[in-house]
Amino acid sequence: MFMFEKPLGMRDTLPGLYVIKEKVRKKMMNVIESWGYEFLETPTLEFYETVGVQSAILEQQLFKLLDRQGHTLVLRPDMTAPIARVAASKLMKEFLPLRLAYSANVFRAQQHEGGRPAEFEQIGIELIGDETTSADAEAIALMIYSLKNSGLEDFKISIGHIGFINALFAEILGKEERAEKLRRYLYEKNFVGYREHVKNLPLSTIDKERLIKVIELRGGIEQADIAMELVSSEEGKNALEDLKQLFVQLDAYEVNQYMKLELNIVSHMNYYTGILFELHADGVGLPIGSGGRYDQLLEKFNRSAPATGFGIRLDRLLEALGDLEADRERYAVIFSQEQRKEAFQQAMNLRKEGKQVVMQDISGVDQIDKFAEKFTDILYFLGKPGKVREK
Amino acid sequence: MFMFEKPLGMRDTLPGLYVIKEKVRKKMMNVIESWGYEFLETPTLEFYETVGVQSAILEQQLFKLLDRQGHTLVLRPDMTAPIARVAASKLMKEFLPLRLAYSANVFRAQQHEGGRPAEFEQIGIELIGDETTSADAEAIALMIYSLKNSGLEDFKISIGHIGFINALFAEILGKEERAEKLRRYLYEKNFVGYREHVKNLPLSTIDKERLIKVIELRGGIEQADIAMELVSSEEGKNALEDLKQLFVQLDAYEVNQYMKLELNIVSHMNYYTGILFELHADGVGLPIGSGGRYDQLLEKFNRSAPATGFGIRLDRLLEALGDLEADRERYAVIFSQEQRKEAFQQAMNLRKEGKQVVMQDISGVDQIDKFAEKFTDILYFLGKPGKVREK
Repeated sequence: MFMFEKPLGMRDTLPGLYVIKEKVRKKMMNVIESWGYEFLETPTLEFYETVGVQSAILEQQLFKLLDRQGHTLVLRPDMTAPIARVAASKLMKEFLPLRLAYSANVFRAQQHEGGRPAEFEQIGIELIGDETTSADAEAIALMIYSLKNSGLEDFKISIGHIGFINALFAEILGKEERAEKLRRYLYEKNFVGYREHVKNLPLSTIDKERLIKVIELRGGIEQADIAMELVSSEEGKNALEDLKQLFVQLDAYEVNQYMKLELNIVSHMNYYTGILFELHADGVGLPIGSGGRYDQLLEKFNRSAPATGFGIRLDRLLEALGDLEADRERYAVIFSQEQRKEAFQQAMNLRKEGKQVVMQDISGVDQIDKFAEKFTDILYFLGKPGKVREK
Repeated sequence: MFMFEKPLGMRDTLPGLYVIKEKVRKKMMNVIESWGYEFLETPTLEFYETVGVQSAILEQQLFKLLDRQGHTLVLRPDMTAPIARVAASKLMKEFLPLRLAYSANVFRAQQHEGGRPAEFEQIGIELIGDETTSADAEAIALMIYSLKNSGLEDFKISIGHIGFINALFAEILGKEERAEKLRRYLYEKNFVGYREHVKNLPLSTIDKERLIKVIELRGGIEQADIAMELVSSEEGKNALEDLKQLFVQLDAYEVNQYMKLELNIVSHMNYYTGILFELHADGVGLPIGSGGRYDQLLEKFNRSAPATGFGIRLDRLLEALGDLEADRERYAVIFSQEQRKEAFQQAMNLRKEGKQVVMQDISGVDQIDKFAEKFTDILYFLGKPGKVREK
C-alpha cells in the first residue's frame, strides 16, 4: 500500500478549497443564526442501537465498529437522529418549539472507487415541536434565504407530500408491500420502471391511469387541484390542502420563484411523514439538499414531538456555485538572524492591517526564488539592521 | 440500552458551549492565518497501515474498523501524520517550507466511564521543511500569540530537548532498553519512580547523581548552563546550544515571560527529535497543548523533511479560560396567520441589524409563556393587521 493512499471515498480539503468552504459555510450559518436557530455539535460516534438504527440511511452505508465494551458503534450517517437524541435528553427541559442547527461531517460507506464521497459536510436545521404548516414554510424559506446568501441563484425547491402518495397508493393498491414497491421506483426516480410496473399490475385501466398520472404532477400549485381529482380519502385530500396552504404561506416570504410542486417526490424510504422537499441547482445532477417533516422520529427517543428540517450538502453546493476564487494573498518577510526583531515588528504591523504574513529565516530555505513565488509581495530584512531590501 | 446514551467518552456540545467554542476557535485561527499558515482538512478515517501506524498515539487508544475491502481503518488520532501524508502527496510540488494549520477533531479510545473525552478538537500548525531553530521559535511564538488572542493570560510554555535527554542517557546507560525505561518515567512525569529506579541501577554515585540532577533542571535558560556540566557528548551539548539559541531568538518575539526551561520533558515516547514543549495553564492539571520538532516523520511518507509544530486542545483551553459568557440574545416575533407578512418583514429588519430573531406562529406553541421565557424580547403580530402588541 502506498503511504499516501486514503480509504475509499475519503478526501482531503486543500488550502484553496478550505478557504472557499469556510466562506460559504459562514454565509449559510449567519443566516441560520439570524433566524434564531442554535447550533450544536454531537459526537462522530454513536451507538448503532440508538442513532444508527433510527437514521434514514441504508444499513450497507453505515460505517460500523465495535468498542472495547462490545457495543456496535456507527460513524453518524446523518445529523437528524443525533439531534433528536439531544432534544430528548440534554434539552429535555427546554420548551418546544426548539430551533436547532448544525454544520457537521456525516459518513456513508461507499462501494466503488471514484464514486461518491464517504464523508461530507451537511449544514442544516431541525425545527422540533411545531406541527403547523408554518413550521414547514419556515424551514423552506430559511433554506432559500441561506442559499441566496451563499451566492446561489439558479435553484429550485421541489415540494411534495408523502401523505398524498401514501393515501393514493393505499386507496388503489391496498396492500402495503405493493405500495412499497411503487414507492421505491419513485424514490429511485425510475419513472420508466414505475410505468412498466403499474402496467403489469392487476388493476382497472382507470386505476392504472391514476397511478401513472402521479409522474406528471409537476409544476405550480395548480397541480394540487389536479391531484385532488385522483384521491378520495381524507388523508390524501388533507395532504394536498397542506400543500396549498404551504404555498400561500410561502408568499409572505417572497420566495415563490424558487418553488415547484412535484407530487411524486419520495426522498427517503421510511422517514418523512408529511411535506418533503428537494433542492436542485442548474448543472448539479444530484440534489444539493433535502428536507421535510418527520413526526415519528422523536418518539423513538421518548420525547414524542412533530418535527421538520432540512440539510444541505456543502460539497454539492460548492459545485453549484462553480469556480469561486479563494482570496489567498500572502506576504513574506524574509530575514537573517541580525534583523529578526525588525522583521517581526514589520510582520506584526502588516498582520495588524489584516494581512497574512509569513516570516521566514533565510537560512531555513533552500530555494529562495521558488519559495518566493508563492507570495504576493516580499520584504527582505537581511544583514545589519537599517537595510531593508524590497523585492 | 437507553436511547439517549452515547459511546464511552463521547460528548455533545450544546448551544451555549458551541458559541463559546466557535468564538475561541476563531480567535486562535485568525492569528494563525495572519502568520501566513494555511488551513486544510483531512478525512476522519485513514488507513491504519499508513497514518495509524505513524501517529504518535498508543495502539490501545486507536479506534479501528474494517472497511468492505478488508483494510483496517482508524479514526485519526492526531493531525500531524495526516498532514505529513498530504505534504508528501497532494502538496508534493509546493516548495518548502510549508506552513499548514488545522482545527479538527481527533479520537482516542477510552477505557473508563467518566474519564477523558474520546473525541476532542485540536487546533494546531505544522511548519514543514525548515530545520533551523528559527522554525521552532516561530512555532512557540505563534502558539503564545494565538493563546493570548484567545484571552488566556496565565500560562507557561515548558521547553525541553529530547536530544539532551537521549545524549545523557546514552553516555551513562549505554543500552537503549535502560534508557527507554528511564524515558518512560519522565514521560509519565513519575519523578519518584525515576529517582527510585536510578538508585537501583548498577552505576557509580557520580552517574546516579547526573541522572537525578535531570529532574531538577527547571527554570530559566541558566539551567542550560548547569546541564552543560552533565553531558560531554557533542549531541548533548548541541541540544543545549539549540535551546540557548532558541531563547535568544524568542527575545525578538517578546514572549519570555511565558517561557520556562524544563529539561526533563519527554512529551511522547518515540516521536520528537529535537526541541519539544508543553503548554500549562493555571488551574488545569493536564497540558493544554504541546509541540516540538519531528524530523523523521515525513520520510516515512517518502518526502524527507524536517518539521516542527504544535497542537492545542480546545476543550482544555476553554477550561483554562474559565466561565465565558455565551452571547445568546435572541428575539421572537410571534404571529398569527393574518399578519405573517408583517411579522416576517419586522423579523427581517431586526435580522439586518444583526439580531437573532425567531419567528413563531402562535398556533404552533402549546405554552406560549414558557416558550417566551427563552427570549430577550418579544414582538406580537396577532389578529388583523395594524395591531402590534409589545410584551
